[in-house]
Amino acid sequence: MIYLDHASATPVSKKVFNAMAPYYTDDFFNPSAPYLPAKKVGTDYEKAKGIIAHSIGAKASDLVITAGATEANNLAFTCVRPKTYGFGSLDDSQNSPTKHVIEEQTSENSRVLYLETEHDSVRMVAQNLGGTAIKVLTNGLIDLNDLKEKITDKTELISISLANNELGTIQPLAEVSSIIREAKIERLKKEIKTQLLLHSDASQALNLLDINVSRLGVDLMTLNSAKVYGPKGVGALYVSHDARLHPLVAGGGQEKGLRSGTENVSGVIGFSVAVGETKKHLNGNRKKYANFRKILLRGLEGYELINKKHTLDNFVVLCYNGLDAERLIFLLEEREVYVSTGAACAASKGIRSHVLKAIGLSETQIAGSLRISLGETNDEEQMHEVVKIINSVVAEEKQRINNNR
Amino acid sequence: MIYLDHASATPVSKKVFNAMAPYYTDDFFNPSAPYLPAKKVGTDYEKAKGIIAHSIGAKASDLVITAGATEANNLAFTCVRPKTYGFGSLDDSQNSPTKHVIEEQTSENSRVLYLETEHDSVRMVAQNLGGTAIKVLTNGLIDLNDLKEKITDKTELISISLANNELGTIQPLAEVSSIIREAKIERLKKEIKTQLLLHSDASQALNLLDINVSRLGVDLMTLNSAKVYGPKGVGALYVSHDARLHPLVAGGGQEKGLRSGTENVSGVIGFSVAVGETKKHLNGNRKKYANFRKILLRGLEGYELINKKHTLDNFVVLCYNGLDAERLIFLLEEREVYVSTGAACAASKGIRSHVLKAIGLSETQIAGSLRISLGETNDEEQMHEVVKIINSVVAEEKQRINNNR
Repeated sequence: MIYLDHASATPVSKKVFNAMAPYYTDDFFNPSAPYLPAKKVGTDYEKAKGIIAHSIGAKASDLVITAGATEANNLAFTCVRPKTYGFGSLDDSQNSPTKHVIEEQTSENSRVLYLETEHDSVRMVAQNLGGTAIKVLTNGLIDLNDLKEKITDKTELISISLANNELGTIQPLAEVSSIIREAKIERLKKEIKTQLLLHSDASQALNLLDINVSRLGVDLMTLNSAKVYGPKGVGALYVSHDARLHPLVAGGGQEKGLRSGTENVSGVIGFSVAVGETKKHLNGNRKKYANFRKILLRGLEGYELINKKHTLDNFVVLCYNGLDAERLIFLLEEREVYVSTGAACAASKGIRSHVLKAIGLSETQIAGSLRISLGETNDEEQMHEVVKIINSVVAEEKQRINNNR
Repeated sequence: MIYLDHASATPVSKKVFNAMAPYYTDDFFNPSAPYLPAKKVGTDYEKAKGIIAHSIGAKASDLVITAGATEANNLAFTCVRPKTYGFGSLDDSQNSPTKHVIEEQTSENSRVLYLETEHDSVRMVAQNLGGTAIKVLTNGLIDLNDLKEKITDKTELISISLANNELGTIQPLAEVSSIIREAKIERLKKEIKTQLLLHSDASQALNLLDINVSRLGVDLMTLNSAKVYGPKGVGALYVSHDARLHPLVAGGGQEKGLRSGTENVSGVIGFSVAVGETKKHLNGNRKKYANFRKILLRGLEGYELINKKHTLDNFVVLCYNGLDAERLIFLLEEREVYVSTGAACAASKGIRSHVLKAIGLSETQIAGSLRISLGETNDEEQMHEVVKIINSVVAEEKQRINNNR
């Protein structure tokens, strides 16, 4: 088996698994329970949060643990939620919901801006809130002029992923936050007190980039355990002191009231160990994947490279114009090579990629595009093997099409 | 160690752990990915959902998997959420939020009724929605007359747990649903088409009662992995065909669009194996716990039994009037006996139990109350040991108080 879909899911390492194991069996206690062994579990949980937080230059108390990146992305957007109908909102628990008029959202006054290539867990929520999309250039990078034009005095939240989940494109967040800083200075002059926050989904980037929330100037950042060789069902949202959120779920008041429910202790322990491993091998892995990428790009034939620059080293997006990528995936599967066309959740519904469309690819180009995402299950030998298999499958498919003409 | 707090957390059995393990390492694939090994993981996931669903007389497609009971309880209440400001609502993804007036909620027109002894994850959400509390009798059972009086033509959702998390009180849900049926017949006569749904949090009951959603007449039911010797961070909401929910989080569209995010495969596999084990030993366990309860009640001295009747067999709630339960917990902890005063999340915040208050206990009675919840880590020998230890600790504490007088 050669697995080339690490952007979709990653295996948990033996080290991570072994670290999680005791919290299922011996140290199974509820961290909120009043006796010592339970309190010890609570301490371990907080320590694990600290390790995750430190990896992005933050403190344990800055993180809200969630059940994954999707929930973290959704939680980030609660900073612009109207306070009136607080579904699960602590602020509103004292008051019954009362009459309230929600202002109509238009592109002139929309409170949310988001990059048009964002994952559905950002895009759908932003659209629900009447958000306006910021364009990307054909290289996948944010169009900073479009961003400047679209920031109005009503803008409260801008959501731009650190690295795109289909292309690996690394966005210039520091440049974005300096534009935001300028907008804030303008507001101060005009005595406008509306918040202006920057959220970034760093799901794909955490194990490949050196991340520091202060340096990047983000107020909210989504982290994902499942993409960094930790367990599924765990994520986190970094929340700066400037951001004021509302809970999506109410209850026992865990995670400072922002995310109730008994803590997923083993999951967070696993996530923290995975993050620790990732940070340890960050530079080595980047070099390794850059080398793998080079081998693929040199050896493969008849493709067009989609993510040429500004990309995570482990992403290789190839277009075989005129071929059907879904057929290629099927033929590769028969040879135990596993790749994807893009986001797994979109792919399963047969939806054409909004990301590839946004960077200006034609329908036939989109139909012929494959996403290879390299990772820890790969070695150099596999890359040479993959070159042979993909070239042979592509040749076979071209032959079949010619025969059918 | 003698652990007497199974209502707060349960260990994962070897069998459950072993069933989960491969989904972290070998079968780590994203169930939505397009190649065969991933699809096989998707099939395993659906099978696991089927096992959980069958345990309550439902089908896999009736369940929405969540990150726990708290989220499931919150999700249930989305059936009464106004459709206008759809935070994460699929229905609204096509339309920008527009002007809308939310009707003021009063006790005369409140759309939600809930039992006053519900867990915070029900109570807080119900209160946020302007819900009205239904009273309990001094034995902890629902006051059915109060329920009848409070159902109006505006009532849309009634939330009553199957068994209370502090007292173990088993509510007569079948009687409740027959009252609801009568109310529905009245509405039909008056041509009122407003929905009237019954939700029940069965977190504590799943491993001690034989549950069938049709027989109980519930439309929505919350299940909790962490209370039935499955992993933490997993739960489920049973949703009947009559109930129409809105997602709390939007994104990739997993769980029929009601709960986006990559599936927590290992968690659901673990939950399903735990449920299977639980159902296998249901009757045996009930008898075992009833016997343990008897040993405790016979051997212990100087207590008042709070949950006399209509209770899960594994709950023993004792009041040592005049003593401080928190001190008793501390003294018991020193002897490696672990008990709690009530809900872990409430206990950790030093909040006096709203449940014990609701059944009419005085402040000093509440302060002197201990919740013992028996489970699979216990055996008969431990019960005799517990009798000795608790009696000695109580005597010691009475002595100390007398000396201080």
